[in-house]
Amino acid sequence: MVFLRGRLDPKARTEMATHIPEVVILRLPSYLRALTLLEEGNAGVVSSQELGARLQMTPAQIRKDLSYFGKFGKQGKGYNVSQLLGELRQILGLDRDWSVALIGVGRVGKAILDYGDLAPRGFQVVAAFDRDPELIGKVVGGLVIQDIADLAATVKDRGIAIAIIAVPPSQVQQVIDCVVRCGIKAILNYAPVAAQLPKDIRLREIDPVLAMQTMTYYLKTLSSS
Amino acid sequence: MVFLRGRLDPKARTEMATHIPEVVILRLPSYLRALTLLEEGNAGVVSSQELGARLQMTPAQIRKDLSYFGKFGKQGKGYNVSQLLGELRQILGLDRDWSVALIGVGRVGKAILDYGDLAPRGFQVVAAFDRDPELIGKVVGGLVIQDIADLAATVKDRGIAIAIIAVPPSQVQQVIDCVVRCGIKAILNYAPVAAQLPKDIRLREIDPVLAMQTMTYYLKTLSSS
Repeated sequence: MVFLRGRLDPKARTEMATHIPEVVILRLPSYLRALTLLEEGNAGVVSSQELGARLQMTPAQIRKDLSYFGKFGKQGKGYNVSQLLGELRQILGLDRDWSVALIGVGRVGKAILDYGDLAPRGFQVVAAFDRDPELIGKVVGGLVIQDIADLAATVKDRGIAIAIIAVPPSQVQQVIDCVVRCGIKAILNYAPVAAQLPKDIRLREIDPVLAMQTMTYYLKTLSSS
Repeated sequence: MVFLRGRLDPKARTEMATHIPEVVILRLPSYLRALTLLEEGNAGVVSSQELGARLQMTPAQIRKDLSYFGKFGKQGKGYNVSQLLGELRQILGLDRDWSVALIGVGRVGKAILDYGDLAPRGFQVVAAFDRDPELIGKVVGGLVIQDIADLAATVKDRGIAIAIIAVPPSQVQQVIDCVVRCGIKAILNYAPVAAQLPKDIRLREIDPVLAMQTMTYYLKTLSSS
């Protein structure tokens, strides 16, 4: 692939954006996290070798990933940490806050509302929904739990872009259908079930078993060698 | 790449295994989940088209992924659901149970011990550790919390292969170093921080912010178009 020289202007970047493989986008938040740690440690510059060591990736892979977005580093000089951080935040749309709705205020949902790490990192849970009449109207984590029937209006009023789903498995498909009808395009699913959804909707899973199942393949290979 | 005919013998499969891209391995648990749902719905056969629709993937991508492991489907006939499930479980090392240690029994750790979905899916949390003298000796989720100093001996005694880390961010690196010294090769990290670790150790992150950061790129593109 062509190695781009100089920074791209915003228009060129937007045009290119459609061609970036999702696998690269999936890696960028990890870059962001490693660079944030470097910045906190007052590192001014980082090489692709050092970044690779922190991310268990090869320097060549890192240079290739970042080359999709223009040329950030100078040959032999490494990357300017705070500049690269700023650019990555902008690319990922993290130079603004995002409004999030929580659906399902059971045990997992309550833990999410209690979790103090979302808002400081730019994700504000601005509304919480359930269908249980016992829960509706109660206050959890500073939010009055609303009837799921109010979702569409609240999504519009509050500019909600992301839904976190924490309902029992049997309700997941129904809730996802409802969320999609309300115009939400990004879903974080805590329920350990597969759901069907339209092609233009992004969905990420928070499922410890799914994550461990991606490692046992390597463990199995180790124990048989 | 070469399309393999017939089932591979175990030796050939092991030799091939080193060449399977990690990105394919990362997708297999989602296949497993979709196929489990199909089996529960009594589907005998599934086409790559139908599987693709459920996984937001193209049929060609699915055929390519599965071709790494031999030829499961017959041209025009689709995949036998229960046979493919059995093969995927074996490939991923899920035809056995895995012993897991939990490290850190704070709020997140307690929620993990309470979570009823690990053991039925083949991941047994057999030991829990903390360094807080107030917690050591207490029983949570049926386990007596042990001193982290006992980790090495317990890993050996109980054949523990995976560590779930749920300690405060400031302790993560120290705990990971300790886990690695004890011979554990697979880590599930609930703390929202990057850690450095040797190349032969697998690590997966459970971090809702990291997951949402992989979607905002697409939301940003939508809202600017």
